Order: sequence, then C-alpha cells, then structure tokens
Amino acid sequence: MSAARPIRLGMVGGGQGAFIGAVHRIAARLDGQFALIAGAFSSNPDRSIASALELGIAADRAYPDFATMAAAESARADGIEAVAIVTPNNMHFAPAKAFLEAGIDVICDKPVTANLADAHRLAEIVHATGRLFILMHNYTGYPMIREARARVAAGAIGALRLVQVEYAQDWLAEPVEHSGSKQAAWRIDPTQAGAGGALGDIGTHAYNLAAFVTGQEPSQVLADTTAFGAGRALDDNAGVLLRYAGGARGMLWASQVAAGNENLLRLRLYGDRGGLEWSHEDPNLLWFTALGEPKQVITRNGAGAGAASRRVSRVPGGHPEGYLEGFATIYAEAAAAIRAARNGNMPDAEMIYPGIQDGVRAIAFVEACVTSSQAGSVWVDL
Amino acid sequence: MSAARPIRLGMVGGGQGAFIGAVHRIAARLDGQFALIAGAFSSNPDRSIASALELGIAADRAYPDFATMAAAESARADGIEAVAIVTPNNMHFAPAKAFLEAGIDVICDKPVTANLADAHRLAEIVHATGRLFILMHNYTGYPMIREARARVAAGAIGALRLVQVEYAQDWLAEPVEHSGSKQAAWRIDPTQAGAGGALGDIGTHAYNLAAFVTGQEPSQVLADTTAFGAGRALDDNAGVLLRYAGGARGMLWASQVAAGNENLLRLRLYGDRGGLEWSHEDPNLLWFTALGEPKQVITRNGAGAGAASRRVSRVPGGHPEGYLEGFATIYAEAAAAIRAARNGNMPDAEMIYPGIQDGVRAIAFVEACVTSSQAGSVWVDL
Amino acid sequence: MSAARPIRLGMVGGGQGAFIGAVHRIAARLDGQFALIAGAFSSNPDRSIASALELGIAADRAYPDFATMAAAESARADGIEAVAIVTPNNMHFAPAKAFLEAGIDVICDKPVTANLADAHRLAEIVHATGRLFILMHNYTGYPMIREARARVAAGAIGALRLVQVEYAQDWLAEPVEHSGSKQAAWRIDPTQAGAGGALGDIGTHAYNLAAFVTGQEPSQVLADTTAFGAGRALDDNAGVLLRYAGGARGMLWASQVAAGNENLLRLRLYGDRGGLEWSHEDPNLLWFTALGEPKQVITRNGAGAGAASRRVSRVPGGHPEGYLEGFATIYAEAAAAIRAARNGNMPDAEMIYPGIQDGVRAIAFVEACVTSSQAGSVWVDL
Amino acid sequence: MSAARPIRLGMVGGGQGAFIGAVHRIAARLDGQFALIAGAFSSNPDRSIASALELGIAADRAYPDFATMAAAESARADGIEAVAIVTPNNMHFAPAKAFLEAGIDVICDKPVTANLADAHRLAEIVHATGRLFILMHNYTGYPMIREARARVAAGAIGALRLVQVEYAQDWLAEPVEHSGSKQAAWRIDPTQAGAGGALGDIGTHAYNLAAFVTGQEPSQVLADTTAFGAGRALDDNAGVLLRYAGGARGMLWASQVAAGNENLLRLRLYGDRGGLEWSHEDPNLLWFTALGEPKQVITRNGAGAGAASRRVSRVPGGHPEGYLEGFATIYAEAAAAIRAARNGNMPDAEMIYPGIQDGVRAIAFVEACVTSSQAGSVWVDL
Repeated sequence: MSAARPIRLGMVGGGQGAFIGAVHRIAARLDGQFALIAGAFSSNPDRSIASALELGIAADRAYPDFATMAAAESARADGIEAVAIVTPNNMHFAPAKAFLEAGIDVICDKPVTANLADAHRLAEIVHATGRLFILMHNYTGYPMIREARARVAAGAIGALRLVQVEYAQDWLAEPVEHSGSKQAAWRIDPTQAGAGGALGDIGTHAYNLAAFVTGQEPSQVLADTTAFGAGRALDDNAGVLLRYAGGARGMLWASQVAAGNENLLRLRLYGDRGGLEWSHEDPNLLWFTALGEPKQVITRNGAGAGAASRRVSRVPGGHPEGYLEGFATIYAEAAAAIRAARNGNMPDAEMIYPGIQDGVRAIAFVEACVTSSQAGSVWVDL
Repeated sequence: MSAARPIRLGMVGGGQGAFIGAVHRIAARLDGQFALIAGAFSSNPDRSIASALELGIAADRAYPDFATMAAAESARADGIEAVAIVTPNNMHFAPAKAFLEAGIDVICDKPVTANLADAHRLAEIVHATGRLFILMHNYTGYPMIREARARVAAGAIGALRLVQVEYAQDWLAEPVEHSGSKQAAWRIDPTQAGAGGALGDIGTHAYNLAAFVTGQEPSQVLADTTAFGAGRALDDNAGVLLRYAGGARGMLWASQVAAGNENLLRLRLYGDRGGLEWSHEDPNLLWFTALGEPKQVITRNGAGAGAASRRVSRVPGGHPEGYLEGFATIYAEAAAAIRAARNGNMPDAEMIYPGIQDGVRAIAFVEACVTSSQAGSVWVDL
Repeated sequence: MSAARPIRLGMVGGGQGAFIGAVHRIAARLDGQFALIAGAFSSNPDRSIASALELGIAADRAYPDFATMAAAESARADGIEAVAIVTPNNMHFAPAKAFLEAGIDVICDKPVTANLADAHRLAEIVHATGRLFILMHNYTGYPMIREARARVAAGAIGALRLVQVEYAQDWLAEPVEHSGSKQAAWRIDPTQAGAGGALGDIGTHAYNLAAFVTGQEPSQVLADTTAFGAGRALDDNAGVLLRYAGGARGMLWASQVAAGNENLLRLRLYGDRGGLEWSHEDPNLLWFTALGEPKQVITRNGAGAGAASRRVSRVPGGHPEGYLEGFATIYAEAAAAIRAARNGNMPDAEMIYPGIQDGVRAIAFVEACVTSSQAGSVWVDL
Repeated sequence: MSAARPIRLGMVGGGQGAFIGAVHRIAARLDGQFALIAGAFSSNPDRSIASALELGIAADRAYPDFATMAAAESARADGIEAVAIVTPNNMHFAPAKAFLEAGIDVICDKPVTANLADAHRLAEIVHATGRLFILMHNYTGYPMIREARARVAAGAIGALRLVQVEYAQDWLAEPVEHSGSKQAAWRIDPTQAGAGGALGDIGTHAYNLAAFVTGQEPSQVLADTTAFGAGRALDDNAGVLLRYAGGARGMLWASQVAAGNENLLRLRLYGDRGGLEWSHEDPNLLWFTALGEPKQVITRNGAGAGAASRRVSRVPGGHPEGYLEGFATIYAEAAAAIRAARNGNMPDAEMIYPGIQDGVRAIAFVEACVTSSQAGSVWVDL
C-alpha cells in the first residue's frame, strides 16, 4: 500500500522533550504515507524554529508559530496537505481552526479541546470548511479492537449487557508535577487541560474505546472523582457508572495513581450470548467466549481473525504489533481518507478513524462526570 | 498439627445435590480437625435421614430436622461440639439460634442471614450465649490473602487510596432457574436469598475480602443494581462505588451474567507507597509493587512470603493450593478457636476467621446497596 | 462417593519433618476413603513410635519398624487393608515386599525402587501375591491431565509428532544438602536415591506424565546429565531426547537448579491435527488447538471439559483445585480399586492409577539416561 | 535522533508477495534513518522493475537485477550508501559480494548464506573490503533482550549453568508447500535454503539469541532432526543439546510443526545466582529472579530497566513495542554505525548489531546439527 506520493504533513507542537510529538512523527512515517515537511513545534518562536531544524525541516518551513505556518503553507503550491496538532488540550482549538480555514486537513491529538463549548465550535468549523478532522484516539487502531468491534456488530455476544472498561496508570502517584515533569504539570492545570485530569487524559480514551467497540454511547453517567495528589485542582482518579439506553450497564475506572499499573487499558464486554475481553497488556490477543463454549484466544492475523482486523495488520500472527503500529493505523486511515477526498470520493466505508463528533462526545462525557461528581454523584444525561 | 482428637461436628443442610455441603465436608476433614458424626441434611425429614445414612452417619444421629438434632445432641455426653450450617440464606438464623442456645459452636455459610434485622438478632444471641460463631467467608483463608492483609497492615502500600474489587461469574447468564437448577432457584428468590441476588451471593464475598485485607470498612456506598435475567426479582449484576472515612475510594462489581467468567474474584489495592493485586484465577500468587520499583510476584511459601501466609500453607511453593484448602483453613482456624475456648483461653491472636460482626456488616452492605439503587443511586451511609 | 466405611490404612515413613508423608495423609483423608490407624514412621524405632503418637495413632498400632507392623497387622481381624510407603527410594522395596506378602495392598511413593533390578523383583512379587500396587505419580490425578489423555486417545491432535515435557525446580541451586536439609541429603545420595538425582526425583514424574497422556512410551532415549552442585554424585540437571516407535520425537528437561522455578511441570504435545499444552502453574487449564482454529482454554468442569476430567473433579469450574486434590484422586482411585478387588471384581476400566509397570518403566528410563550420558550421550533402547 | 539526512538505501529481493521485504522497508523507515531509493526486487527482471515502480522508486533506479544495480549505484554521486538483501538464503552471497565490492554497506537477512563455505568466503570479503555487514537477527533488537544481556554481563545470574531456548511455529504443520505457499516452498528446498530447514529459518535465530544474551557460544552440539512433512528434504523439527566450554548445558528446540504456536521464541537462562526468562509472546517483559528472592517482572522503560534497554526504547513503559520496533532497532544501529564509519570513527561501543561472524557461527551451528543428526546424534564440535 505505498506507491503513491507521501502526503505533505506539518506539525504544531511536539518539540524537544515532548512525548507525544515523537510518537506522531514515527506513526506518520511508519507506513510511508506522510512526509513531515513543515512545523511550528513550540509556543516559543525561537524554540519552535530550533526544534524544526533539529528535526530536519527545511529552514523556510520552520515557522515561529502556527498562524504564520497556516498562512504560508496555504499559499504555497507545494504546501502541506494535512497538519498534526499535538499541543496541550487548550491549544488544540486555535490551530485547528486556523488550518481548517486555510483548507488544510487536521489530525488532532485528544481530547479534542479543553471544554465542550470549544468542541462544539470546532465541530461547526469542521462542518463549515468541509475539511477532514481526524482525532487521535489511537487505541481504536489496534487490530484486535477492530476485531472486537466487528464481532459485536455481527452479534457474536448478542445484546449488550455490560461494559467494564478501565484505564489505570501510576505515573502521578507521586507529586511529579513539583519535580519538573512538564508532562504532569500541564495535565493537572485546569487552564491547560480543561475540566478533567485523569478523566480528560485517559478517561476519554476509555470512553471512546468502549463506544467504538460497542457502537453505543451511554445515555447517563454518574461519577465520583478524586484528587489524591495534594493540591491538585483536577482529578487523578475517577470511578464512573454508565447506563445505556438499550439497558446495558457499565463501569469505567480511570486512574493515574494506581501503583504498579504503567498503562493498563482493559475493555470487557458481556452480552446475552457471549463475552469479549481485551487488554492493552497484550493487545494482539482478543478473548472470546460464546456462552456455554470454551473461551478462545483470537490472535492478530491468526486463526479466527476476521477481515476487519486483518485489514489493519502488518505482520503475521505471533509477531507482536504494539502501540506505534496502532497509532500508525490511524495515520494510515487518515491518509486513505485524504486521498479519497482529494479524488472527490466519499471516504470508503472501510476507513475507520475517530472524528470530531467522537471528540465532542468524549468532552461531553468528561464534563458530565465532573458535573455529576460535584453534585454528589448524581446521574447526568449525556 | 493433628494429634488431638477430632472435634465432633454436625451439619444442617447440604444433602444430596447440594454443592456447598460437600465442600464443607471435605474442608472439615482435610486437616483432620473435625469428624462429622451427626446431621439434619434436608428440610424434608425423610430426605434428611436418607442423606445422613448415605454419608455414613450412624442411624441414631441421622436427624429429621435441626431442632431435634440440637436437642438430642446437646443432651449427649458425646454430643457434637460444633455444627456447620449450609442451608439457603433464610434458613441460617433459626438453626444458628437453636445450636448456639444449645451450647454448640456454629460454623455458618454466608451471608449470615437473609436480612439485617436477623443479623443483628443473631449477633445478640452470639453475644448472649458466648458461643463461637464462624462465618464461612472462605476466600479469607487463602494464604496470599493473608499475606496481602499482613503487608497492608505493615504499611507496604502506605496510606490506602483505592480499592478495586470484583467478583464475576456467568452461570446465571441464561435463565437456568427455569431449567431445573435448584442452586439458581433459591438464589434469585427474595424469600430465600434476602434483598441481594448477586450482591448477597458473591458481592458479600467481595465486600468482606476487601475489608479483611484493608482493615477498613467503607463509610458510604452507592449502587446501580440490575436484573438482566427476565423476571428476576433480585439483582444479577451490581456496580457499586465506595467511599472510606480515611479518604480512600473504591469500586465493587458483582455479576453473575458476565459470559466467560467462571468465578473471577479479583482484589486490587493501591496506596500512596505501592500496590497489591490478587486474583482467584491463580490464588497462589500475590503481585506487589513498591512505588518506583519492579513488580514482584510473591508466591505461597515462596521467597518473600511472610509468616502470616506461611502459617496457613500446607505444601511448598509451586505446589498449588486451591479452593478447598482455603475453605479448610477457615475450618482449621475454627478448630483452633474451639480448642482454645474449651481450655478457657481467649482465642489466640493468630486465629483469624470471619465472625458475626463481619456477617452483620456484609448484610448491611447489601441492604445499603439495594436502598441506594432503589433511590436512584444515592450515597448511603453504612 | 462416601457412605462406605473408610479403608484401614497404615503408613511406613513420613514422620516428623518429612514433607511427603504429610501430603499422603491429607490426600488419603480428603475424600473420606481412608482412615490412618497404624504406622512405622521412622527407621529409628523410638522416633517411629513418637511420631505415631503425635499423629493420634493408638499406642498398640504405633510400631517400631515396618516388619513388626506387617506381621502384627496381618494377624489382626481389623488389620490395615492398605499401606502407604513414603520412605526414601531405597527403602521402598523391603516394606513393599513385606506388606504385599502379608496380603496388604500397597500405595507407594515414586520412584518405585532405587534400581531397575529391584523394580523387576518387586513386579514379580506383585504378580505373585496378586495384591494391588498403586504408584504415586500424583500428577496423573489432575483432571486436566485426564482431559488431555482422553483427547489424545480420541484423536483430537491426530498422530503424535512431538512431546515437549519439562520439570524445573530450583531448590537445589545452592548446596542445601550441607546446611541441614534432610530432603536434599538423601535425594543426592546414590545409596538412597538410586542412579538418578533430578532424573529420579522429578524426571520420573515428567516421563510418566508424558506416557500417561500420550499412551506411548519412547523406544529410545539419549541424555546429557550434569551435577552443578559441587561434590554431588547424582545429576541435578538432565537434558534428554526421546524417540518413539511411531515416529514421534521428544525432549525432556529435568532440573533442580533452575533459579526462579519452584515446581514447574509442563507438558506440550503436538500431533498432525492439533496441540495440547498444560502447565502445573495453573493445573486447572488445558490449552487446546485444533490446527487452523483458534486456541481454546478448557477449564476443569468448565465448558468443553469431558467425562474423563469431570469424573475426578470435586468443585465447579473457576474454583481452583490443586496439588492435594490431584494427589487425593490417586488415593480415591486406589480406594475404588481396593473395594472392587475385595468384591472379587476386576478393577473398573474407569479406575486409573499408575502401577508397578509404570514404576518399572520409569526406573528403566532413569537408568537408560544414566547409561546414555555416561557413554557420551548415545541412544539407548528402552 | 533524526536531524541528519536519511541514509540512501537500496533493496535486493522483497518484491510483491514477500513477507520479509515489507518488514525491512517499514523497519528502515520507522526511525527516519533511511530512505529507500533503489532496488532490484525480483530475480525476474520485469517483475523487479514493476515492483520498484509500485514501491514508488524512481524509474531510473528500478533495476532489472542486482548486478546492474550495484554497478550503476556505485557510479552515481548520489548512489545508495547501503543495501538491504532480503532474498532466499542461497541468494544472499552473490549480491552481498557485489555490493560490498562496490563499496556499499550491506544489511542482510539471516541466515547469512546457504552454507558454511559461502559464509566463510563472505567473511573474507567483508574483511577485505572493510565495509559494514549487518545481519538481521532482529530479535536482538528487543529492549528486554538488551536488558537481559546487560544483566548477564553484570553478573546478575552469576555463572551460567543452563540455556533453555526454543522457537516454535506451526505454519508448516500441514504441507502448505504443495498449496501455493512460496514462503514455504523455498524454505524446504535445500538448493535455496541450505542444509537446515527449521534449523536454518528459526533455529539460527534461537541460537543467535542465546549467544547474544549469554555472551557465550556452545562448544559442542548434538541434534536429532526430523522432517514430519511428507517428502520434505529438510528438517521441520530439531531437538538439540548444547555444551559450553564453561560448563553450562543447554537445550534448543526449533519446530515449524508445533500446532498452536504462531511464533514462540522463548529464552530462559539460569546461573548459580539467579535466572532470567523472556518470551516473544510478550517481548516487553523480562522476568528476573535473584536466587532466594521473589521473581520480578522488569518492563521496558519501567522501574528497574537499565540503560541498555532504555537506549533502544521509543515509548514509555506500558506502551508495548513489538516486532517491527525490534527490527527497526537493528536498522537504527546500522545507521549509527554507517554514520560513525563515514566520519572515520570506529563504531561506538554502544552500537550493537549482529555481524558477519554471528552469521558464520549460526551456519556452523546448523551444519553441525545436521552432521550430528546424520551420524546418529553425536556430539559435534563447533
């Protein structure tokens, strides 16, 4: 899947020391679908340009800020066709707006914005400009998540009854924000992160993953959020109950203070005919039980794996794919969508990427949880 | 630990076809501490006697009902010293009262009674009679649960922050109560089971386990309970949030409709200095993380296992002990307590068994969850 | 399975401080099929009697030595019906002979004798006396081992191609024989243990397990044995290649110096239609792959488990059974055989226990490995 | 690690339908260190050029064959600096020779050649030309393999005693070579694959991995090889015993007919002070036991992971890296070595990649195993 010329890509944010910027760059490159040729990598103009040069960007496309970049690139015949926005949450809206209005497709890190009002405004801009907006809920790129989604849709577990989803980390168990972690500092700052701490950072992933696989959004949520880190203004732990219109029930746990959990995202779904279980600890496996039959382990590209997972697998079963490959799959989906749109085609039904509406719903979820918790843990409609 | 004469044991309930009666008999026998010599094994007098004879009980101690048995045994010089009560929940109170008042110690299956009022009344009777009352929360007998408890008490995880406990089964995923399962039939019948379905049957185990290991009881609970099985009057699934007076938070999930889970009891605890994780899938392992250090797997009787777990282990590390051994440990603790009491000693501090107050608290938990859920999922004080 | 009067059991060996004697006693008791009423628990007469009294044996049946016991018990109307022999390897033959010739059935720990010549002589005695001889290859008692055996016999994996079996421990990684471990001391002493160290102690289990499940014995073995412990006369590690008449190949590894392995017995079998994998780390699971289909996990008493494993299961799926239960199953099989024989019946086809011929073959295996290794690792016929 | 201009790369082999060519291309691209700009992708000139164009190679650098390519590229000022050779085994030598002699560094798939004589000749050519030769034993690129190697070197397990290494697959369990699998067809053809079937294809990986981590090569091997697939001229299963000069012993199993194993490479090492265990099933974990202490799980970039593994990790602990990342690490090491050599520097001690001598030793191992097996499983010196 490669002969085509790589899509010209720019990046906003992700300069020196940023974790997620480097991940985006590898993911964009992995399948050979994008070439990174421009960027504004920092809110500090000097550092922005220095980072660009370090990354091998040509000097005339190393920009001091995203606004200059949007203007300049949209004016070039060989301007970027898409931009990856990898700034803190509160810095997604402005560059997204700028590039969309400049006619450039946007690939944006999650959560989509720092608050729901911005998310709605951005949705309108996406709609008005007609550009593509791809939201980086990278966990939806895992082949076995695609397999799970396809199986649920095909009725493999019957009518959905239970959603148990959890995302546990421990990197905020200690007050690392006071010892120089920039990653921590902005994530616990409401002005940069928005209303959710763990909820926004990883709860949105858990929420999105459950919705992606089940094809259902909860109708109501009830939350108890906590900040265990002294002086933290945002939650670092949240317990959430979920209710679905179809009768299903769920529990969602997001924590960044669970000692011994590096990055445990786990999804378990139970219906009236079977169950599906997946864990990020070994993302190449999907555990499937048809009620009354032995549990099976479906492996990526292995026996029993269907078209939906095979389509996004790169290497044979038994050769583990990981985080970067799942991330890269969203870039590959984005590339396919960009190429299809350029040819005047509607995106193919097979293209699966989270978009602006997923972003709106995830922020709505975060804000509903905060509302619920502040009101003493009451049910809040979504 | 055996030279002593076995303690004379009777049994109420647990006749033909009952699962838990057979388990109690094996567990009582396993360490050679009890000899089963009398019983009233069914509410049907004929079946009670027939079951007794099948089990090798002498004819003069095969009783038609528990009342006759309590009277007759307490009158014999060689009468039973303890009785195991393994009837449905609503049939615990009456025989427990009868035997306690007849001067016979009681080992009772959980939950202690079918409702909180009975639990409180029974607590008074235990207090008034001064007899021993051992409640069969068998999971507290697992060596690595003892290890976890000792580590928490010693500060290994620091101040408790999070309790994540779940107990998932799938045997009620289909309406087996309509196809002849007596086990299912009484468990979903409020007159026999009490206010809780899954909550009473397995939620009480989960609740008790968390309390046993942490040494803390929640101060408030909030629940959303559901009956997925058509026509069921009691919950077969419950999602519960927990709040502790010390600031900890928790989530408890009890389900009997989670397809693919045979009997998954899992406890995870996180404090400000570390975490502990245990799963019934492999009860011989305890996963311990000191914050900032590699995760360790502590094995029963293996390197790193302490006195609390070694005390209740029978075979070397790497030789798995299972459900029956954990169960038997509660019988062994009961035997030690009975012998100590007989000698006029206070039970040794090392004797650890769940008692009447654990039973009261577990029923209070169930009723609080039901109250919470019926009120639309509000916080209810415990 | 209990009404019947327990079988009267004696024991030779297994006094204070012995690991395996206590295991035999629990296993004999677990299903209520045996009552231990006599014993000669030590080669030291005083200690023999002291141990007996400690174990609650009546004074007149606490014997100074096995010969006295065999004579006295066979003369009593209420004499023991079976004896468990749990002495070091070189002390199996003499008591086994004595009790068999006294008309008492024998349950013997493995390996059957310290050398092949004795094993053959004992086989003749078993044959001549017509008594039962049950060899304690306890791992054959695990339900999922029975399941595996039944599946192989039913053709589930097709024609056998590969046998990969290993038994790894680490308790002899350090020279514990010099620091007071009696368990270690006799096991590394050729006069007590025989020709094999790890080979005899655990290699025989691995060998027997593979034979039990596959229904095939290798026709040739080739070994490289090593003693890593300084000054050890017997192997503490052995690598063995296996060839089967039917064309299958195998590898067997036995080690007592593999740091980090407490007691890892693992069997993997591959045929031309599928594979089966079992590990003692979680003995309640059996992993089955039909070639070209997803791997399944068959659980004890769970979906997909067949009659052969259900027959020897005590508790429902998801409630782990362990080492003692597997051990107890051999006692239960022994009890059934003893009762059947007493009634003049041939043992039922369902009774499955390792016998004298299994013992002969396992010792032949050990001696062939030693011969092979001493000759520079050549193929030796079995 | 990127500002530098990508190294100009060519490729020989790996056209349409080839598995490993695509893997090399992703791996070369993943860290942005190489740009693929020329190729001869097939031994069929037309298909070679067609594949090149499909891959986006400029027409003037789409070559009909490797000889033309070597000549043309070495004559260009902007010619390729390195070439990846991804042909069947017997087609490694000729292009490697051609490019080395044309002054172009070589990255070559394993095994290095189809026979030992060629391997030695190639070693001489590497030496004579002074070019770099990187052999694609990609499993040495896994961070936790680097961690294991560093720990062994630092004495964490003490003096090496045991090497247990296995590589099991099942894709040749059925005769897929007769149903159109080109991957299978050449691997079982001695003229293309050389003397080893499973031994050459995966046994070399297992051998190399053990050597890489332990820092030791066995001094003797003894093998029993088998072809289970009807009519196969090469082994599809091999059991091998290993002896090391320092006294260690080992077992190596390579199989492509082990139903239920997709690609299980597992290495276990035991020394007199501890043990290390790694499995490709979850390559991000390393299990470490210091004798007498609890087993620890060391995670990639997690607590306890050292500099050697951190150096080659891309994303934080808990975010799995997989097969492609390990592969890419060898490319990254190659890039660093090429840049260092270009600057006249000796390759930095930190650069770790398998080279020509590793290739020679692996082929020597294969041929020794074949010799051993053909002579009836005798020890053969390496």
